[in-house]
Amino acid sequence: MKEMKLEVTGMSCGHCVAAVRSALAGVDGVEVRSVEIGAGAVSYDPERVSPDAIVEAVRDEGYEARVVEIA
Amino acid sequence: MKEMKLEVTGMSCGHCVAAVRSALAGVDGVEVRSVEIGAGAVSYDPERVSPDAIVEAVRDEGYEARVVEIA
Repeated sequence: MKEMKLEVTGMSCGHCVAAVRSALAGVDGVEVRSVEIGAGAVSYDPERVSPDAIVEAVRDEGYEARVVEIA
Repeated sequence: MKEMKLEVTGMSCGHCVAAVRSALAGVDGVEVRSVEIGAGAVSYDPERVSPDAIVEAVRDEGYEARVVEIA
């Protein structure tokens, strides 16, 4: 598993945090570490999912996201 | 039916608007006219529900509300 930190813009309340958390949790190969207004952190299996696909899942939910760090 | 306008504070996104709309729609005797960030409008049957009960439903959902106008 690799760790990835995301910057996520557009979350303004607890509903938004829950929506982003749910979007990330729905991606095969992803385990959500944390989501808060402005940011998210996940672990992911690089053999099952790409960073781009994780970012895309957040964008599909209606929030802008970009990778800040992968370790 | 009477018409009531509410000031509602604390809504910050579409999820919040949906939550307030749902809370109002769940009150017996209330028909939702509109909900947007900052405000709501309903029709209500004064024989079935009081303005206070409508305000309380919004507060129970986690938003501050007050009656602006009843007509």
